[in-house]
Amino acid sequence: MNSSIVSRNLLATLKIKMPVIQAPMLGWATPAMAAAVSNAGALGSVGIGGMKAEDARVVIRATRALTDKPFNVNVFCHKRAVSDPSREARWLEYLKPHFARFQSRPPDTLRDTFSTFIDDEAVLAMLLEERPAVVSCHFGLPEPAAITALREAGIVLFATATNLDDAARIADARIDAIVAQGSEAGGHRGTFDPAAADELLGTATLVRLLARESALPIVAAGGIVDGAGIAAMLALGAQAAQLGTAFVVTDESAASAADRAALLDRQSRTVFTKAVSGRLARGIDSAFMRLGQDPACPPIPEFPIAFEATRALIGAAKAHGSSDFDVRWAGAAVQLARAMPAAELVALLMRETFDAIRCLKDEFAR
Amino acid sequence: MNSSIVSRNLLATLKIKMPVIQAPMLGWATPAMAAAVSNAGALGSVGIGGMKAEDARVVIRATRALTDKPFNVNVFCHKRAVSDPSREARWLEYLKPHFARFQSRPPDTLRDTFSTFIDDEAVLAMLLEERPAVVSCHFGLPEPAAITALREAGIVLFATATNLDDAARIADARIDAIVAQGSEAGGHRGTFDPAAADELLGTATLVRLLARESALPIVAAGGIVDGAGIAAMLALGAQAAQLGTAFVVTDESAASAADRAALLDRQSRTVFTKAVSGRLARGIDSAFMRLGQDPACPPIPEFPIAFEATRALIGAAKAHGSSDFDVRWAGAAVQLARAMPAAELVALLMRETFDAIRCLKDEFAR
Repeated sequence: MNSSIVSRNLLATLKIKMPVIQAPMLGWATPAMAAAVSNAGALGSVGIGGMKAEDARVVIRATRALTDKPFNVNVFCHKRAVSDPSREARWLEYLKPHFARFQSRPPDTLRDTFSTFIDDEAVLAMLLEERPAVVSCHFGLPEPAAITALREAGIVLFATATNLDDAARIADARIDAIVAQGSEAGGHRGTFDPAAADELLGTATLVRLLARESALPIVAAGGIVDGAGIAAMLALGAQAAQLGTAFVVTDESAASAADRAALLDRQSRTVFTKAVSGRLARGIDSAFMRLGQDPACPPIPEFPIAFEATRALIGAAKAHGSSDFDVRWAGAAVQLARAMPAAELVALLMRETFDAIRCLKDEFAR
Repeated sequence: MNSSIVSRNLLATLKIKMPVIQAPMLGWATPAMAAAVSNAGALGSVGIGGMKAEDARVVIRATRALTDKPFNVNVFCHKRAVSDPSREARWLEYLKPHFARFQSRPPDTLRDTFSTFIDDEAVLAMLLEERPAVVSCHFGLPEPAAITALREAGIVLFATATNLDDAARIADARIDAIVAQGSEAGGHRGTFDPAAADELLGTATLVRLLARESALPIVAAGGIVDGAGIAAMLALGAQAAQLGTAFVVTDESAASAADRAALLDRQSRTVFTKAVSGRLARGIDSAFMRLGQDPACPPIPEFPIAFEATRALIGAAKAHGSSDFDVRWAGAAVQLARAMPAAELVALLMRETFDAIRCLKDEFAR
């Protein structure tokens, strides 16, 4: 078997016409969105991180029912958390006054109830049966045997890197393309070791570093919302751009009216926090985001243990009609997002990309 | 008087041929570097932040002696620090073991001995006499009267923005162009209010947001080291790119052999710290960078008060032959820097920029 089934020409391998990938945003992306994007000639995605195999199969089949084009299924490959009861107890104690606002109490303990693809054989077996065109991996890599099995099933594999070291591990693991996730990206950073010092490389810098240092095709992700952004990433050597926030406000998104209003509010600003889940993630500024910035904030439990407390606090707030603790992951260029059907967005992005390249050539090429 | 003396065509206004600005890196940039860059058709810069007027005049005259082309002089416009003796005492106490390694003690107190252009009338008077083509402002804006005086002297004014709010203040202040400093940039972030929540916008995202939202010309800064990076920023709507780290390793730089070796080491990684000066800055990972990441690290004194302790600690280390606490500001794409004469780098950057645009057109334009 060839060492990589993806040539430098990623679009040809994926059988897509446009260098655009809709990000597999868990909670926002839907089968309707992924299918609309794939039908429009780009690559749609759905996320199944943390889902049970049979629930994930329903999502994949729902997507396939709407398109016969290739699409991408995203899995979470984080290491299992090591519980630290005293740290978790301090965190729950710290959250007490916030729960008290909603006449509620934090749970007594926190457990890791979130699955990881690394040890989920049922999800692997389901993927080998369903055979989506692409499987993309976040937070790390699958076990070598799973990589081999997925490749032998003809599935193209992507993995996320936020730095050069993770990219080198991806290149060693017989993955077909690197999703270069810059610090502008909304949601969770896919860094393999969340405890390591984070260079916080911006998308342009990370893409350029990887295009120069890695033999694998690069997909640029983070802060890209229009055709000028796509053209810039192609100039840096990316073979495609992955857009998330741009698609959250499309008609096919699972976003609520309140979510859409927050994302489309030009005054919205995004910040990083670890307080929601234990891992660094970017979202619209909110009460949750500010918890982690409080100087009195104790160490946050490991990912995904902290998530359990978050779910409880959101639930307590909602039960009292408050959306103060709502979490809305969004990328740093959220102010440029535009509401429309997903297929229209794909077509617009391509027109804008060609226009940007033509302008650049007319103004600067000799 | 027109509301802006800079048209959308920044290069024509500046009378430069190439959309490249060498960043005014205090400590690294030299008159020889700025002159070489300006003589090669781009815009050279020198930094005079914190200098006395007569010392700064020497730097400007030394540059002018080497070029009759336009160049840029950078000033620091930070607000004066408010001393907090108990916070400063805690910081000095925290640094004690580090000083003790070098048989030394921290200073008894810290004072703000670093000047700011905001209240330095002698530097303003000197600039009005010397009339450099461009004055660029970091950390904030000069007083309105100083802006008026500089403009009436025919000086083109730049100011740094790291976010949309600072950019709006720049646009209201009759400044001619915005230096969009992304989170990849080496050295100090120019954010006006260092205590505000920091979105940490990457260069590509910030440039795209400002190109869409601001009427002023945009100069992209942060993580740009080669022509592909310049082409990408032009595609995003920037009119020029400002490069720092790329020039630190040129022949004309004030960097020592050890500095150059550290920057050219492909294993080097950059991180953010506030521990050096009290403001967030990016540099090569070192003992100083790690101080701020220590969970036991107390609140760091305000900028530039913390700088006094830093100078003392570097001095104590050096007196014992240690470079452990050396500070080497560098941008996130430091791995792509190349050693050569500055004029050669300017010529190479332009060839690469044209090549990148031609490739993009050939591969993707219809």
